[in-house]
Amino acid sequence: MRVALVTVGDELLAGDTVNTNAAWLARQLTDRGVTVERVTAVPDRVSDIAAVVNEYHAEYDAVLVTGGIGPTHDDVTMDGVAAAVGQELAQSEPALEYIESHRGYARADLTAGTANIPAGGEFIPNPVGVAPGCHVENIYVLPGVPEEMRGMFGEIEAQFSGTIQHTRTVAAAEPESALLDRIEQLRERFDVTVGVYPGEHVRVKVSGPAEEAVTTAAQWLEQRVEPPEQSTDVDDQSR
Amino acid sequence: MRVALVTVGDELLAGDTVNTNAAWLARQLTDRGVTVERVTAVPDRVSDIAAVVNEYHAEYDAVLVTGGIGPTHDDVTMDGVAAAVGQELAQSEPALEYIESHRGYARADLTAGTANIPAGGEFIPNPVGVAPGCHVENIYVLPGVPEEMRGMFGEIEAQFSGTIQHTRTVAAAEPESALLDRIEQLRERFDVTVGVYPGEHVRVKVSGPAEEAVTTAAQWLEQRVEPPEQSTDVDDQSR
Repeated sequence: MRVALVTVGDELLAGDTVNTNAAWLARQLTDRGVTVERVTAVPDRVSDIAAVVNEYHAEYDAVLVTGGIGPTHDDVTMDGVAAAVGQELAQSEPALEYIESHRGYARADLTAGTANIPAGGEFIPNPVGVAPGCHVENIYVLPGVPEEMRGMFGEIEAQFSGTIQHTRTVAAAEPESALLDRIEQLRERFDVTVGVYPGEHVRVKVSGPAEEAVTTAAQWLEQRVEPPEQSTDVDDQSR
Repeated sequence: MRVALVTVGDELLAGDTVNTNAAWLARQLTDRGVTVERVTAVPDRVSDIAAVVNEYHAEYDAVLVTGGIGPTHDDVTMDGVAAAVGQELAQSEPALEYIESHRGYARADLTAGTANIPAGGEFIPNPVGVAPGCHVENIYVLPGVPEEMRGMFGEIEAQFSGTIQHTRTVAAAEPESALLDRIEQLRERFDVTVGVYPGEHVRVKVSGPAEEAVTTAAQWLEQRVEPPEQSTDVDDQSR
């Protein structure tokens, strides 16, 4: 399963906010065996949201959109998603009922439009806040407030799955350029994907669908690199 | 000036790494009056890099690409950018000279391909590491290692400018939905852009090219909202 994430908000494009929502969602999806192919931040502008969501909607198995839902004038994500799928917005009666019965708000007190989602879409409950999410075609719209986004993802996570990738990371005290021969051999000998990440120590990430191959490959490499002094730093969780 | 950022790396799409490079670059550019229109993370795959860079290259005034330059097999950003502009890679003699004279590496010790950039491009010095960046057409390629990326941005930042936006942020203890009337009035009365961000307190960000209008608008709002108890939290830097 191949998905794209679209994170909506001028604050992301101004550098006011680090996009931790994207990293969190990407990790959840990856852990479920889903491949994230794009993470794109777009401004609070209907045409931009519509264009990007429409493109990814056609290209990937699913699109997760976060941010820009709520009562203020800059919350235009639902409009953008509606435009992307050629629908109007319509008030969701199930969303209103949920907000009343589970969130304790009288519907008369809600700002107009609070429960508007693209026509034909299915509302997704917000177990933490007020603004409902929605699922329309292969698009899922979630809030931008991190706790609300995480809570709502819990409502839909079962719909995302794929082949779980096992991972082991080997740290090396040598510079990246010195490791090239062994990384090349690692790729040739084992059926694994290899990523190399510089940092205080170079980390070589070995991953693949077969746990045994990943473990064997990581052990092969571990025996052939100079370990960092603090070898307890090594993250060798399989996940 | 309208730009897009493309951040390359499987680790971003797996949620292994939070995209702090994008936030840092977005802030630098915004502070220089440049509008960032897209921030997109793409995998270490030539076709994906080429497709996204090619699209943004046509659409925006400039594209900044970070990550995926270096000696390992998953460093394919230069290939992707070359494909995006229809060029081959070629060894940059000025890059080799710079690495020898300023970075202290003998060119014979460098991994093959270290100084390859798209033909017709201009190398950008890396004052912190080895891998050179490049500038080709309206595309700028920078490293992914944060210190190297920041150092290299210093070499090119003068090429990015626009109308500086002044900003003031007003915090309010009231919920977002309760503030809607005043936010609406703020937008009608003053020539400013208004963003509303939930959090522990709602923050209303007022911005625009005219500092006086921004200050007046922020003061108008400040007098009409309930301040949070810790009103010293308010970020009212003009920038």
